[in-house]
Amino acid sequence: MVPSPDSRPPLRVAVLGCGVVGTEVVRLLTTQADDLAARVGAHLDLVGVAVRDVDVERDPVVDRALLTADGTALVEKADVVVEVMGGIEPARSLLLHAIEHGASVVTANKALLAQHGPTLYAAADEAGVDLYFEAAVAGAIPIVRPVRESLAGDHVRRVLGIVNGTTNYVLDRMTSEGLDLDQAVKEAQALGYAEADPTADVEGYDAAAKAAILASLAFHTRVSLDDVHREGITAVTADDVEWAARTGHVIKLLAIAERGEDADGTAGVLVRVHPALLPQAHPLAGVRGAFNAVFVEAESAGELMFYGRGAGGVPTASAVLGDVVSVARHRVLGGRGPVESSYADLPVLPTAVARTRYQVRLEVADRPGVLAQVAAELASRGVSIEAVRQSPSVEGAPARGDASAVAHLVITTHTAPDASLRATVDAVAGLDVVRSVVSVLRVEGI
Amino acid sequence: MVPSPDSRPPLRVAVLGCGVVGTEVVRLLTTQADDLAARVGAHLDLVGVAVRDVDVERDPVVDRALLTADGTALVEKADVVVEVMGGIEPARSLLLHAIEHGASVVTANKALLAQHGPTLYAAADEAGVDLYFEAAVAGAIPIVRPVRESLAGDHVRRVLGIVNGTTNYVLDRMTSEGLDLDQAVKEAQALGYAEADPTADVEGYDAAAKAAILASLAFHTRVSLDDVHREGITAVTADDVEWAARTGHVIKLLAIAERGEDADGTAGVLVRVHPALLPQAHPLAGVRGAFNAVFVEAESAGELMFYGRGAGGVPTASAVLGDVVSVARHRVLGGRGPVESSYADLPVLPTAVARTRYQVRLEVADRPGVLAQVAAELASRGVSIEAVRQSPSVEGAPARGDASAVAHLVITTHTAPDASLRATVDAVAGLDVVRSVVSVLRVEGI
Repeated sequence: MVPSPDSRPPLRVAVLGCGVVGTEVVRLLTTQADDLAARVGAHLDLVGVAVRDVDVERDPVVDRALLTADGTALVEKADVVVEVMGGIEPARSLLLHAIEHGASVVTANKALLAQHGPTLYAAADEAGVDLYFEAAVAGAIPIVRPVRESLAGDHVRRVLGIVNGTTNYVLDRMTSEGLDLDQAVKEAQALGYAEADPTADVEGYDAAAKAAILASLAFHTRVSLDDVHREGITAVTADDVEWAARTGHVIKLLAIAERGEDADGTAGVLVRVHPALLPQAHPLAGVRGAFNAVFVEAESAGELMFYGRGAGGVPTASAVLGDVVSVARHRVLGGRGPVESSYADLPVLPTAVARTRYQVRLEVADRPGVLAQVAAELASRGVSIEAVRQSPSVEGAPARGDASAVAHLVITTHTAPDASLRATVDAVAGLDVVRSVVSVLRVEGI
Repeated sequence: MVPSPDSRPPLRVAVLGCGVVGTEVVRLLTTQADDLAARVGAHLDLVGVAVRDVDVERDPVVDRALLTADGTALVEKADVVVEVMGGIEPARSLLLHAIEHGASVVTANKALLAQHGPTLYAAADEAGVDLYFEAAVAGAIPIVRPVRESLAGDHVRRVLGIVNGTTNYVLDRMTSEGLDLDQAVKEAQALGYAEADPTADVEGYDAAAKAAILASLAFHTRVSLDDVHREGITAVTADDVEWAARTGHVIKLLAIAERGEDADGTAGVLVRVHPALLPQAHPLAGVRGAFNAVFVEAESAGELMFYGRGAGGVPTASAVLGDVVSVARHRVLGGRGPVESSYADLPVLPTAVARTRYQVRLEVADRPGVLAQVAAELASRGVSIEAVRQSPSVEGAPARGDASAVAHLVITTHTAPDASLRATVDAVAGLDVVRSVVSVLRVEGI
């Protein structure tokens, strides 16, 4: 049974970083102290909060006497270290120092894990302490624990995630309000959903770090940030969004990790982040605003989805506290959480071999026989067509049959390797009846 | 680190029951043996499968030599016992016997947990073994683990669940195809989604057992099946479904567990299962067919949803195997999973004090002043109206002003205690301008 919290010495908790998330972690540790003690079986004693500048004005929930600029000294006197400072250094060094001193660690730092996960795992394993990081992927949504533990008896085939709330908000506003990308980004900035420099979000870096972590967990294979094929949303236009809707889709920035094989039949893992068309009926299509969701396809479990707030200080702090309770319980009752599972050690394959579908929008000459010519080009390359829509591209354009008349052709393919689809688009672009390739987007979720 | 599986003796696994789920558990234990060993750090050795009749023909994946009718002897020689036989006895006695003999146990048996959870928890606690039951609620969907562990540092306010696939399929078919209840139930039976005797599903017993388990976990309070207010879907008509759509709702059978307080301000837990109107924009409204989903509102994490297959042998077996890996890892690496958490020990309050909303459909005299009279009755009881729709109830009915003319009045209230709403409906039914109360449904998800 869980011992009475009063029957043993308290566990010493150190918090590294006191930004939005850190402040909420301190608030929960303080206001929920009795509940946490009941759940852990020991009191949690906040022994310090490491910050860069102890003199900055802060939320009054943070006792100034706990602030210190000496993170190294702080982690040496803690049983549990919570890292919510972000960035690579000094977070990495402080966590390694904490682990070497026997502390269990909880981090919300996706960039650190995506780049130095194996080093941290190895250190925690060596020291026999826990390394938990639920908050690093999709904020408050419990996804790390289900993938690491609940699906431990199953085989994951694919993970599709909306794991960046900023870009989901932007694409959602483009869809629902017809905004263009710049307008939607400005709105997101005004609401605090996007940073002044939105690069990490709109270029997909944030999503790519989370994709690397999810792929590592789902496929028992080390996947680092550099392994992730990444395309942001900056090329997505209001026109793309409108055409997506006309063909029964929505555009989402997806993090995709899946099993696949290369041309030789070698099994491996494919990991990519890019904007994609999703059928409107797909469970992820309904994920609105700044929400996140992760859709998992497993051999036995079938389709699962996890939905919730992917960012924000308060939701992220909830995930951090869940981890704190887990690692603290292990210190009271014994035991260890999951360690790195990389036994499958699959190769990370290039996106070129990923089987996907394209929707290509073309401006073509508006005369009979054009579609036949384009279709023949696709067929000659083994790419079959799922749907075609043709319409005059411009109101008041020259009438059909006029040599300068232009039609808009939207072609959705069946599944084929990404490289074949890419080569086919290049070949189609070279046809003399094709004026321009307006846009190329992958179609996922089938 | 996880030891090499070959470095230690295998763990002995016994399976109780060999129906659809049991067969799939045996299949996964057999076909995934190497992966499971890598994840656990020990080989899992299936030592026997207890069945009522060893002579029945079975799936060839089940080695006949492993079958035994003597469950008691079987559990005595196992380290991990998986109970997928269902029903109260002999499941209860066998699990208690297994626990006393030091085995960790995994069960998918919601009825057993809802009725005898505290006894099983106490026995496992006494013996120092694990009791896991992810598969008992919402099949393959990881919900028990997130609520028990990921949200351990948060406060759950409310859980809304679609936890019975049969009734969700039936209501979905009524919604999408306009079927009436009997037709939809027959279709579900033909597809194997409903039993020949569908009582446990359509009357809400199955959902009530899951509601009791979810409420216990979410609120750290013992809640048994008898504490759950239960209404099934048998009174739901095609007309109700159609009116739900007209007012922007869908009808779902919901399992609801929430914090509340009684008239004296005493805090407690409310647990109920009933059909309810959900706004079409609510994330649960899009849960189609036989899928399940659980929507959780927590103080810090905000809104979370967990979605997937709630039944079926293969998905349920996935959840069972995830638990098997967890408890087996504890035997290899030490440690214990979560134990019963009932420290909050809140009273279970009657549904009468639950704050909810009603949508009431009335047949009323079709003449001026009727709506005013009905509205006055509501106002006099402190129930305020959110929306009203009035329309002739029958095509070709007597014209308005005719003494026998009838109109259809649909009133949606704001939030009020269930008992006040109920009393108000009774009072309205007694007004001489009201011909009949056609239907009364709660509106949830606001």
